[in-house]
Amino acid sequence: MHGVLQIDLSAVQHNFRYLQNIVGPTCVVAPALKADAYGLGMRPIAEVLKSCGAKCYFVALTQEAIELRSIDAEADIFVLHGFNSVYADEYRRGRFIPVLNSREQISSYQVSGGGPCALHFDTGMNRLGISQGEVLEDLSGLDIILVMSHFTSSEDHAFWGNQRQIDSFLEIADKFPSSRKSLANSGGIFLSGDCHFDMVRSGIAIYGGNPVLSEINQMRSVVQLSVPVLQIHAARRGDTAGYNCTYEFEKDSVVAVVSCGYADGMFRSLSNSGALYWNGYRLPIRGRVSMDLAICDITQVPENCRPMIGDMLQVIGHHQSLEQIASDAGTISYEILTSLGRRFHRSYIL
Amino acid sequence: MHGVLQIDLSAVQHNFRYLQNIVGPTCVVAPALKADAYGLGMRPIAEVLKSCGAKCYFVALTQEAIELRSIDAEADIFVLHGFNSVYADEYRRGRFIPVLNSREQISSYQVSGGGPCALHFDTGMNRLGISQGEVLEDLSGLDIILVMSHFTSSEDHAFWGNQRQIDSFLEIADKFPSSRKSLANSGGIFLSGDCHFDMVRSGIAIYGGNPVLSEINQMRSVVQLSVPVLQIHAARRGDTAGYNCTYEFEKDSVVAVVSCGYADGMFRSLSNSGALYWNGYRLPIRGRVSMDLAICDITQVPENCRPMIGDMLQVIGHHQSLEQIASDAGTISYEILTSLGRRFHRSYIL
Repeated sequence: MHGVLQIDLSAVQHNFRYLQNIVGPTCVVAPALKADAYGLGMRPIAEVLKSCGAKCYFVALTQEAIELRSIDAEADIFVLHGFNSVYADEYRRGRFIPVLNSREQISSYQVSGGGPCALHFDTGMNRLGISQGEVLEDLSGLDIILVMSHFTSSEDHAFWGNQRQIDSFLEIADKFPSSRKSLANSGGIFLSGDCHFDMVRSGIAIYGGNPVLSEINQMRSVVQLSVPVLQIHAARRGDTAGYNCTYEFEKDSVVAVVSCGYADGMFRSLSNSGALYWNGYRLPIRGRVSMDLAICDITQVPENCRPMIGDMLQVIGHHQSLEQIASDAGTISYEILTSLGRRFHRSYIL
Repeated sequence: MHGVLQIDLSAVQHNFRYLQNIVGPTCVVAPALKADAYGLGMRPIAEVLKSCGAKCYFVALTQEAIELRSIDAEADIFVLHGFNSVYADEYRRGRFIPVLNSREQISSYQVSGGGPCALHFDTGMNRLGISQGEVLEDLSGLDIILVMSHFTSSEDHAFWGNQRQIDSFLEIADKFPSSRKSLANSGGIFLSGDCHFDMVRSGIAIYGGNPVLSEINQMRSVVQLSVPVLQIHAARRGDTAGYNCTYEFEKDSVVAVVSCGYADGMFRSLSNSGALYWNGYRLPIRGRVSMDLAICDITQVPENCRPMIGDMLQVIGHHQSLEQIASDAGTISYEILTSLGRRFHRSYIL
């Protein structure tokens, strides 16, 4: 018996509708389903989103678009990494819409026959995208249905650069009066109505992560992760825990060893930093998280209500948010989600 | 086109034989195949190990044992997390050998009928295992074919505690004269012939990781990871890269954006820390690694030999070892391996 990862599809539905309500009926909420729907499983997530009216999705890779098309025959599927002529046949068959990020991708798409596409302009990421000042001489053969850009820091509403990105995008958008516009990701949806335009692209908010820094999370949490206790034992003062003896017990203690390790996405950076929960008690991780196991301290739980072998301790849930464990691991909720391992029993509830 | 993960099965063979040669013909090398063979794929790894004579394996979970039995009908399969009566039928059908870590597991196995098993004693990890001083009154019904323990720091040959663990294990072993003994993991194999006993358990060394701290790696590398360039563009002095503008270009620069991100196991902790390689040139990662993309700096590559769109940059290979990227990410080679994503094209060569 390993851990149980519970994925609440009704929360996914709720979050999608909540975002749709914020942006209003004239704006499309397009879920990001890349990276296996942020690690939660593309098929169940896409099916439930379809059932509540999603008609437009973003993936990163052509292979993801192919998988998604097998689930939803009608939706608009935008491919963020853009067009590659190697996949011209797949694009045609799947009616995928490339997000063209560069002049090279534009001309490659033109050579392959062109058609519906999005143009992605870079307004500050210096990642993918057409530079703002770049001259696009030849747009023949392109049916530019969407013009888009991407925020660098939309979760931080105090960031000075957000407005600059909105302004830059407005300038670009002016040149494409007949195309739909999209700028906001999850954070952008909450930043300002000014950046909703015709379409918002949401990943983390749909999956229950907090899209706004330092504010109470308005999204309903989607993921719960519980892992079983394999063994309980005493550790004496001066004993050490785990590989390389990185933790020394300051007093006689009791620990629970759980079936969950970094191969499951319980980051090794949680060593001596993160915690699990049992009935509201915080159980600090002692020593290094190992590949399949972690050690947590249950000393402070009153003896008559300590967990026993087989009991499930909470890694993510009511007592510990995605953001909390991400912070303890030195990362963000997104990376926790995409790292959740394949060994857990996955239970989808609706 | 996403990355290509090449897994060299002949290197796996070589490493297995190399270890077998070190420990000699009277000692069994038992590969650890847990966590999907450290992320490299249980089936191809188990098949190639079987072909070079492996007859005995360790996995963590019952579900892994079931998978392995479908690949190798004859091998001894030890299950490290031990016996759980929920899986009694699976154990019987699969002829799995539980590693019994506690009195609770011992009596549960006895109640289920007992049979072949290993006893795991804790000599310093304070993780799983029977405490050294624990009195085991009733071992009836157990066919104890193996007595084992586990090093905390065997990769560090200077660690004072290694000898103490060997001594403790010798004391325990004395009480089980007719059982085989096993103490060493990959690091232990190189520590001393004194800790080889009847069986060594090796994971990381078989998969090409360096089992000895601060020494040249004697193992043949198994994994190569290359990822394609999606876009190349200029960045001006003062521009920033990626989410949250965490990198500012000190001079006019040229960057390559690659199709690989933390959803693929390119840890977000490599942000502004790790690098990719192109023909021996180190290309530092600029800004945050994002879910599906990373930005690296190619300015220092002479203009006439810079990578172009579609070229493959090296993440792991001749120019960058597993250990190097692990160190840049603030972790160990093991976690890099088990995190390598499912989106790469996997190419097994023999």
